Parts: sequence; C-alpha cells; structure tokens
Amino acid sequence: MSASRQLHLSVGINSTGYFNASWQQRTGARLDFADPAYYLRLARLAHQGRLDALFLSDHPALMQDTRVRPLHSLDPLILLTALAAQVPDIGLVATVSSSYNSPYNLARRAQSLDVLSGGRLAVNIVSSFSELVAANFGSAPLPPRDERYRRAHEFTEVVRALWGSWDFAREGEVPPGHLWGASAARAIRHRSEFFSVDGPLNVPRSPQGQPVIAQAGASAQGLELAARHGELVYCSLLSKPAAAEFGQRLRARAEALGRRPQDLRITPGLVPIVADSRQAALRRHEQLTGAGSEDELLRRFAAEHGLDLARIDPDAPLDPQGFQPALDQRRPIGFTQAVADLVRHERVSAREAVRRSEQGHRLLLGTPEDIADGIVDWWQEGLVDGYTLQVPALPDDLECFVREVVPLLQRRGVFRTEYAETTLRERLGLPGWAGRRMRRVSGGPRRAGD
Amino acid sequence: MSASRQLHLSVGINSTGYFNASWQQRTGARLDFADPAYYLRLARLAHQGRLDALFLSDHPALMQDTRVRPLHSLDPLILLTALAAQVPDIGLVATVSSSYNSPYNLARRAQSLDVLSGGRLAVNIVSSFSELVAANFGSAPLPPRDERYRRAHEFTEVVRALWGSWDFAREGEVPPGHLWGASAARAIRHRSEFFSVDGPLNVPRSPQGQPVIAQAGASAQGLELAARHGELVYCSLLSKPAAAEFGQRLRARAEALGRRPQDLRITPGLVPIVADSRQAALRRHEQLTGAGSEDELLRRFAAEHGLDLARIDPDAPLDPQGFQPALDQRRPIGFTQAVADLVRHERVSAREAVRRSEQGHRLLLGTPEDIADGIVDWWQEGLVDGYTLQVPALPDDLECFVREVVPLLQRRGVFRTEYAETTLRERLGLPGWAGRRMRRVSGGPRRAGD
Repeated sequence: MSASRQLHLSVGINSTGYFNASWQQRTGARLDFADPAYYLRLARLAHQGRLDALFLSDHPALMQDTRVRPLHSLDPLILLTALAAQVPDIGLVATVSSSYNSPYNLARRAQSLDVLSGGRLAVNIVSSFSELVAANFGSAPLPPRDERYRRAHEFTEVVRALWGSWDFAREGEVPPGHLWGASAARAIRHRSEFFSVDGPLNVPRSPQGQPVIAQAGASAQGLELAARHGELVYCSLLSKPAAAEFGQRLRARAEALGRRPQDLRITPGLVPIVADSRQAALRRHEQLTGAGSEDELLRRFAAEHGLDLARIDPDAPLDPQGFQPALDQRRPIGFTQAVADLVRHERVSAREAVRRSEQGHRLLLGTPEDIADGIVDWWQEGLVDGYTLQVPALPDDLECFVREVVPLLQRRGVFRTEYAETTLRERLGLPGWAGRRMRRVSGGPRRAGD
Repeated sequence: MSASRQLHLSVGINSTGYFNASWQQRTGARLDFADPAYYLRLARLAHQGRLDALFLSDHPALMQDTRVRPLHSLDPLILLTALAAQVPDIGLVATVSSSYNSPYNLARRAQSLDVLSGGRLAVNIVSSFSELVAANFGSAPLPPRDERYRRAHEFTEVVRALWGSWDFAREGEVPPGHLWGASAARAIRHRSEFFSVDGPLNVPRSPQGQPVIAQAGASAQGLELAARHGELVYCSLLSKPAAAEFGQRLRARAEALGRRPQDLRITPGLVPIVADSRQAALRRHEQLTGAGSEDELLRRFAAEHGLDLARIDPDAPLDPQGFQPALDQRRPIGFTQAVADLVRHERVSAREAVRRSEQGHRLLLGTPEDIADGIVDWWQEGLVDGYTLQVPALPDDLECFVREVVPLLQRRGVFRTEYAETTLRERLGLPGWAGRRMRRVSGGPRRAGD
C-alpha cells in the first residue's frame, strides 16, 4: 500500500439511524426524518468530522411498521442535491434502483447533481429486492434475481456510456457562428436486452469525469457487478479472514475483467457503539436493539438462525453447517453470508457472535479508543480501504463519533484533518473514466471563462 | 377581481435565453448553460426582482444544432433543488414528462423537493412530442397525441393521489411505542390503462399541501388536462380577444368538471425587448432574431406560414383562412393557434404580426414604460393573471427587466415589493388539495418540535 493511502469513512444518514428503534433513543423532533434542517445538521456534522461522504440507502416504498423509523423517505438524489448546495467538500452517495429507473433519466439526474456539486457524487446501483417496491411500479411481480442483475449490468453500461456522450474534451475547434463543436457529442445507439437508448445525454461531463460507481450486492451476481463496474464497494465483513478472502476474490475478478485491482475501494459497513467503557457499550447495545439483556440477544440470534438454544451451549463454537444462505432467498444474501463466514473462520460462540455483528454489519463496542483501534486495525493490514459508518441513532451517535473518535484517528495520523481534494473520485484515489486521469476539461463548465 | 389580486410574474431561465442565437448577444462564459454559478446568479436576480417563480422548460434529449444554444441541459428537478437550497422565497416550476417518467418516482422526487423547499414547487406536466426524446426511452415510436394525453391524465391523477397518501393531518393519536399513527398512510391501489401503483408514497405531504400543477399544452387534449388539473396555465396569447376567449373557455370547462373557475392562474408567455426607444427595440428585435431587418422578418414569417410575399401586401390585413394549425401535427399546437387567433381577431398585417409574437409568444417591444404598460394593461382587465417572462438573452435581459421594469410596476402599485407568502400555492392564491385551505400540519415536518 502506498504512503498516501487514505482511510475512507462514509456515514449513512438515513432517517433516525441504523437501529429500528433509534427514534426512541435520540434527541430531535419526532418527525424530523423528513425535515430539511435535520439533514443539513447531519451533513454539517459529517463535514466537521472530515468524513469522505454521506451515504443514503434507498427503497422506493413506505415501510408501514409504525414502531420502526421509516428508513427511506426523501429521494436520495434530491436530498443530496440540497445538501451539496449548502455543504462543501463532502461526497454524496445516492442509492438508485436499476430495476425501476430508466437509464436516460437517471444518467441525466445523476450527472446534473455531479455537475452542480463540482464532482462529488457516487451512485450506488441496486437491483431492488422487494415486492413492496415492485407494487409501486406496475403489476408485474419482482423479476427473479438473475434477470434483475442482467438488467443492472446493462443499466450501468448504458448510464456510463451516456455520462461520456457529451464531452467537451473532444470538442476541437469551434467553427465561427457555432456555440460548440459537434464532435463533443456522440450518440451511443445502445440496443440490447432491456434498453434501447440513442443518446447523447444533454448534460456534459462533470468535473470528476463521471460519478463514482458504488455497489452493494453480495450475491454472486452482485459481486460480478462490483467486479465489472464497482469503484466503491459496500459489503458485510465480520472477520479479518473473510475480509481478506472477499478482497482477493473481488480484485482477482476485476483484474480478469481487465480492470486494475487497485481501482476498487472496499468499505464495509461498521456499527460503532461508543461508551465510557466496554461494559457500558454492551448495555447500550442491549438497549438499542430493544433486547434489554444479553440473554434476549442470544434468544433472538437463535431464532434468526434456526438454532435451538436448549440444545446448544452459547459459549461453545457454533457449527458452520447451520449458516448457509439459501440461494433463492429474495432478501440480501450479504448479511447471512457474513455471519456464516464469521462462524466458519473464527468458530465463534453464539455469545461472541451477537456482539460481532448487528443486522449483518460489523459491530464495534467500547470506548472511543476501542473503536479507533478496531477501525485502524483492519485498514492498516490492507484488508479494507475504510468503512461505511452506520451509527446507531442520529444525530447523537454521529455527533459522538465526530467529537470522540475522529480526533483519535487524526492524532494517530491515519485520517485527514482537512479536505485536500475537490472531487470524490480524486479523494478516493480512483482513476478517471476509461482509465484516464482526471483533468480540468478545457472550456468545460467548471472553468467557464473562455 | 378582488382588491388583493396579485400580478404574477415567472421567468424562464433555460440556458442562455429565449432566442436561439441568444448566446451570441449576451455577457457570460461560453458554456455556462451547465454552470451552477450561472443559474444561481439568475435565481438571485429573479429574487431581487421579487418574481413569483423560476420556470424551466424541458426536453430530455440533446439538441445537436451547434449554432443554437442547447435549451435543455441540467435536469429541472435537480437544478431547482440546488437553487431552492440557496435562494429563499422564489417559486420553482419544473417541467416533467408524463410519457417518460414513472409516477411513483416522479411523485416522490417532486414531493421531496417540495418538502425541502418549504412548499415552493410547481410541476409542469408535459406529454413530450419529439421522436428524439422517444429514442432515448426505448425502441417504441412516440405514441400518438391521444394516447400521450390519456397517459398524462392518468399520470397526473396517480401523482396527486400519491402526494396525499402519507398525511400527518390524518394521524390521530399515536399509540405508545409507535413513532407515528398508521392512519396517516393510505395505499392508493391505482389500477388503470397505463399504471398500476399501490402506494403510499414514502414522503409526507409538504407545507403547501402538494405541489402546484402547471400545464402548458394548447391542443384540445392539453386544454382538457389544464381544465381538470391545471392551476398555473402557460399558453400563447397574442391578442386581448384571444385571451378573453381562452380564459372563458378554460374556466367554463374547469367549472363543468367541478372546479372553481377562480382556482386557475393564467400566465401566458411574454417576450419583452427593452430599449431606450421603440425604434431601438425594433432594431434589437431584428438583431436578436438574426434577421437583421424588417424585410427579413417578413420573409421568414411568410415562409413559416406558407405565404407568397410577391402576392400579398405586407401592410394589408392577413387572411385568417391561411392560419389553421393542422390537427395531426406533432409539434405544439399552441404557437400556430396563437398566430391564427391574432389574425382572426385583429386582422393584423404581416408587418404588424412579426412584431406581435416571437416563436408563438406575445412580444412587447419598447421602453421600460412601454413594457410595463403592456404588462399591466391585460392584467388590469382581468384577461390574464400574469406572465411567464421569456427574456431574449440571459443574464442581461433579466438584469435589465429587474432593474428597469420591475420598479415601474412596483411604483404603480401592481407588483409586490417584498415576498409576503411562504409557499408558492399561497402566493398564487390557490386552494389546498381537495379545496381545503392551507394549514400547518400538526406534528408535520415543518414544525417538528413536538
């Protein structure tokens, strides 16, 4: 790893936080999950902490369990556009569905935000996996996973082609009486299984060449999408061997597809529960989950994984055979796969397992020092490039992380104290489109002085 | 008309201005049609002039004639979101295609912007009429007008139903342990010719109840859509009798559909060319069009309408028979209809006609006083509720209008000197959804303090 290798930390800012019952354990107004001022405050906190980016997961349907915070409300592209206009520097990761968007509209809206934000956007392409979502977009049932991923691949290809279809770097000399040189625009004339799109896009390339592609699926099809197009990869990794395995597999596949293995940033989810002591963090964990005790955490874990607590010793190593994700399941494969990997690699007990992951993501419990240790550890070994923080309750736990943990990382010299780069792509050390390094487009919209 | 009746002035801020060759006759950087700072400047100018709203027309395809400014680039919803975050008060009119959006995504994105802007959005629903656009959204040809309008009607109905489907005004008492009251959410379960959408939307009602519906089509089908759903109506009106006829017809049809005739605001396009004298304005008109002389304006007019200049006297009344728009034409009917009406009502000569309209919209030529007179005249007679300004070249002509014309209107007491209302709906004096007056939603996102 090079000397200039950076630790990358993004933060999820959906609703009132990562835990379902976060709304009960936070400061703030009851319905501020739809309040612009609330998200502005979160964005400013993240900026104060010099985090890489804001991350919005998404799901275009209302979750109607009223005991749970509505995780997805304001549209990610719209909300991030408003935040980008008010908060400088910070990157923006918007989740969008390849199943329920048309590539031209999506490419255009994303590129518009990328231009308006000065090149700070990443687009997290998901194929959607919910019948609730499908019912908002027609009478057809949710297509099977294979078909959704074939569409996601083609969708991503069309969107990337559109992003490069009006590029003033290709403009050449502009004839007298013409505003721009025709060679800047190239039709894409895409024809394939799902889409027929002529182009070109009517928004020119952004200052970062094109939005960063984020990818989050962990099924075989999701990994293939990440290997082909992913630049910022979200995933569930609960143990070092699993992280090493995942990184090797993904980079090898990317290389086989003609990409450079170093052109991917792996930033798994991380749930930090910060307290004055590890014991206090354990109690807070039990409270945040609503379990109230470790016994109840164990009971829930057993129920989720089909274990009979009367027949297993919670302190004995778990049997990896019991943790295989069914291949035809419609919910994300990553979360069950992550727990299975943890059990396989580390032979943890149930009592350990419940403290190692929360809803599939790596859980870190303890003092600010403990959290900083856990963050630096894997990163220093090169197992990950950083993390996507999923803090328990917003805004409180983001405030706490920025106040207590970020300064420790900065003091250790592993995390930035100021933003050095302008675009998200530059900050992540990713190459420009088609492998070319970023450069200011001559005569382009960011240097409109010619 | 009531004493509190307001003059409503919106301004189109697409690209470098209304005229194709506006880019050659303005100050500014060559490619600033995609520069965020440029649009921010336009929005601040409009705010300084206390205009009602910014208007963005749209067309999701690149116009590849490089001698002409690209009229439609950055996505309207995205650009207006960025501007709303930086400029207070001003309303936002976003054009969206009902043919090439899905109602759930569009309803959600629009309602998100409406929430984020504090209730300042109007959505201008168009059915799209270009094969260039169709080719960016699949292999099917552009559907015939009837089908596009049937879809536009259904689209609008679904979108409006979704906008009201998660409403905290219906919430009632929230049970202990619940974040919100289930009765706030209602599925819409829409099933009809084009769409099947379950809902509810995952964005709650905005402070203005729901975005204002703008409507711009002038075909029989467009007028029906305006009568049924339109609240802010754009149109091409070139003479007082035409304006009177249009208003009567539209309001009568709205009333027949169960609406109150006063719940529509008619704001036709207006192209102001301001100069120190009428003669100077005439010369500027010839320059802006690229015609260079009145003779050339006449020649172009004749060519456009199939007249033989060798056989008609440019100073004699034109024959209305020659100005009937073909019903099957795929381009907007409004513009040719407007010229036909002008000829029919006023028996103008060709020499007069070329100075009365520009690309179908009413043209006002002269000193700031002349422009102010022309604006106040129709409005005071109740023929229109205001105008959608299409200024020749941006930013210069907006700057000039704000500096020279707005103060005259204010001195005459017909135009606001400060913004009094918070939402666009209130400013336009429009009723809330389902006829109810606007009120702060108890516990809703704009007063999230409970």
